[in-house]
Amino acid sequence: MNTLVQPIKGFRDLYPQDKAIQNYLFSVLKKTADRYGFEQYDGPLLENIQIYLNKSSEELINRQTFQVKDRNDQTLVLRPEMTPSLARMVAKASQQLVLPIKLFNIGLRFRYEAPQKGREREFYQADYDVIGSNDILADVECLATAINIFTGLGATEKQFVVNVNSRSVMHNQLQNLGVNSDQMKPLLGIIDHMDKLSEEDFAKEIATLGLTNTEAVKTFLKNPIDPESDPYFAQLFKLLKIYSLDKYVKINPSIVRGLDYYTGLVFEIKPVEGMRRSLLGGGRYDNLVSTYDTSLNIPGVGFATSDVVLWAFAKDHDLIPTVRSKPTDVLVTVFDPSTVEASVQVVQELREKGINAEIYPQSDKKLDKQLKYADKNNIPFVIIIGANEIAKGTVVVKDLKTKEQREIEKEKVGGEMKLLV
Amino acid sequence: MNTLVQPIKGFRDLYPQDKAIQNYLFSVLKKTADRYGFEQYDGPLLENIQIYLNKSSEELINRQTFQVKDRNDQTLVLRPEMTPSLARMVAKASQQLVLPIKLFNIGLRFRYEAPQKGREREFYQADYDVIGSNDILADVECLATAINIFTGLGATEKQFVVNVNSRSVMHNQLQNLGVNSDQMKPLLGIIDHMDKLSEEDFAKEIATLGLTNTEAVKTFLKNPIDPESDPYFAQLFKLLKIYSLDKYVKINPSIVRGLDYYTGLVFEIKPVEGMRRSLLGGGRYDNLVSTYDTSLNIPGVGFATSDVVLWAFAKDHDLIPTVRSKPTDVLVTVFDPSTVEASVQVVQELREKGINAEIYPQSDKKLDKQLKYADKNNIPFVIIIGANEIAKGTVVVKDLKTKEQREIEKEKVGGEMKLLV
Repeated sequence: MNTLVQPIKGFRDLYPQDKAIQNYLFSVLKKTADRYGFEQYDGPLLENIQIYLNKSSEELINRQTFQVKDRNDQTLVLRPEMTPSLARMVAKASQQLVLPIKLFNIGLRFRYEAPQKGREREFYQADYDVIGSNDILADVECLATAINIFTGLGATEKQFVVNVNSRSVMHNQLQNLGVNSDQMKPLLGIIDHMDKLSEEDFAKEIATLGLTNTEAVKTFLKNPIDPESDPYFAQLFKLLKIYSLDKYVKINPSIVRGLDYYTGLVFEIKPVEGMRRSLLGGGRYDNLVSTYDTSLNIPGVGFATSDVVLWAFAKDHDLIPTVRSKPTDVLVTVFDPSTVEASVQVVQELREKGINAEIYPQSDKKLDKQLKYADKNNIPFVIIIGANEIAKGTVVVKDLKTKEQREIEKEKVGGEMKLLV
Repeated sequence: MNTLVQPIKGFRDLYPQDKAIQNYLFSVLKKTADRYGFEQYDGPLLENIQIYLNKSSEELINRQTFQVKDRNDQTLVLRPEMTPSLARMVAKASQQLVLPIKLFNIGLRFRYEAPQKGREREFYQADYDVIGSNDILADVECLATAINIFTGLGATEKQFVVNVNSRSVMHNQLQNLGVNSDQMKPLLGIIDHMDKLSEEDFAKEIATLGLTNTEAVKTFLKNPIDPESDPYFAQLFKLLKIYSLDKYVKINPSIVRGLDYYTGLVFEIKPVEGMRRSLLGGGRYDNLVSTYDTSLNIPGVGFATSDVVLWAFAKDHDLIPTVRSKPTDVLVTVFDPSTVEASVQVVQELREKGINAEIYPQSDKKLDKQLKYADKNNIPFVIIIGANEIAKGTVVVKDLKTKEQREIEKEKVGGEMKLLV
């Protein structure tokens, strides 16, 4: 086979059955946004590389993104994430926006990484953000929204866990354990990937920092934090209890999130078993908008998840429902070229009644082939109009599930079919 | 203002109100696909440049597309159109697909052209294709689907016209007027842009071809074609009459469509007045799949339209309805930090009842500010729970439209609000 028929590596061909599953995932994401009050927005897929340099090194961006040179030799980046675009758009419209504002985006993102289970180079990401509130209520609303996505998919607390932490609490607690400001950033870097390290490698990496109290830091990182150890966590769990969501959430000191822009709450949702990949991640970023204009003091908190990872998770837990990709409820067959006119009249009548209907798009195929088409496409009803029916002013309706068929008056076909579909 | 807050040229920031309008346009496009039996699919946004070289010169593609070099120095193209990806996907799955198949895609396309009214560098395009039928019924179904998009927007035959032509009919008729095979391709090129030429320039361009019968060709091109002049057109109009769609359609010899791959029917929808830009275009392409595998003889017919041009058309004709961007039906206010618990209980109760509800995400703002938030966001109902209400076990519901407010039992709030929204 011609290799050109394959998509490029890490990119997906979505044939109708897969696209229908993706649309189901999108509908869960959109419904959650609606239920929790997030308005949809969108921004460009290509952005000037400058907007990503605020928070990452150029070297990292060059390694992890797809780039385009425009005709003025500017480097444009296929957006790897939405938050920098969001911060740009908030900065641009800061005079017009009614704050706080809850925003939702679902769109493509691109990362030049090795594809693996739950990760492609091209994927959809859904982002939910609350902009303009520094209140812990906004943090909890984000957690509630995130949890609703998973319960909306039919998952339970036995299948996913929300790991929460706080950058600022971590900072304070580590400082109390003697970590100085030079050691803080590299230590957070080690914590960010400690899940992937052996006990030994973890110890080695920690040793390089020259901490005054290595053992105490290790003990702190390896053990659960008591919510009562800090006023932020105490208040967070008090609120989560009122939301009846505390059963989903655990404080986990190993969660710090890789991105530099987080300032407070950070969280990740992970499967309890199976994939080790994070399913959703987010946190509070109170200084991101001010990188555009230091006079703009606009706090934010939000999170993102991807269709690829949700799909893998839902599949692992048998949570993908049966979805029909073919919208058609009634197929009007074409008995032979001489009966086209009658079939066209019926299909148009059905459509005018608001029924999803199609006419078999070829007038010279055997009825048998047309019935097979309906069957393979899961079209529930078929209408047959031969010369006899035309003479009598009737049509034959066949229910492909029950195999029953009956004759009805052609004039009444729209109304009768409307009751069936 | 920092220039970095602007999107790059030809790319759009869609704040919620604009995104809601775009979603409305998407819903019309999707509903039409459903009504006419088209299944949704999608493919990659980046494709190997090779798949476009089948039908256009590399020079043209380099001039009109955004390109990415991958790490193997392969040139990837941000898809400028969907049809080549579709042909690739059909060729790849030709053994599995049930043909004929009706396919619908809505997705981003990118063209490196000068932005103007109805045209951006980044835009959504909706593609509708019938693959695997060479029957004129498939042609007419495409025309019917295309027309339904415009009637679905509320447009009438006074506002848009469907110009149809046929590449093969043109070929025959021009041949009969003495055009030889060397002259045919450059002549079609002139015809494709003759709308934009003055009478004089048109005559000049035609003259360069050295036709044997220039005047007859000019007369043919400048005058309507009688449907009865050709069996294809005669049958097309016979069917269009049965569909009751003939009033929208005109044969126009100046429509040939620029793309090389069209083989039969070609058509464009244009506004009757205003913009000269084509709103939708398509045609029959019977040899496109065989460019991947010459053993695959799979005919196709389809068309595409863009959100940008539909938006401009709908705006020109005042066809854009009022759309709400904020999904929230009920805002639960937070009277003061001491009442947060009661407000959270109510908002969660509403959400469990399937109501789109939000809690004001800050507990230290005056009620007045919260009511303004509801008002500016067009949220129809507000719930207020102060210390008095908590004591009585009630909540106050305020209808922001009628300004009426009433007190209801907190226990019944879910059921009562469900009746209102």
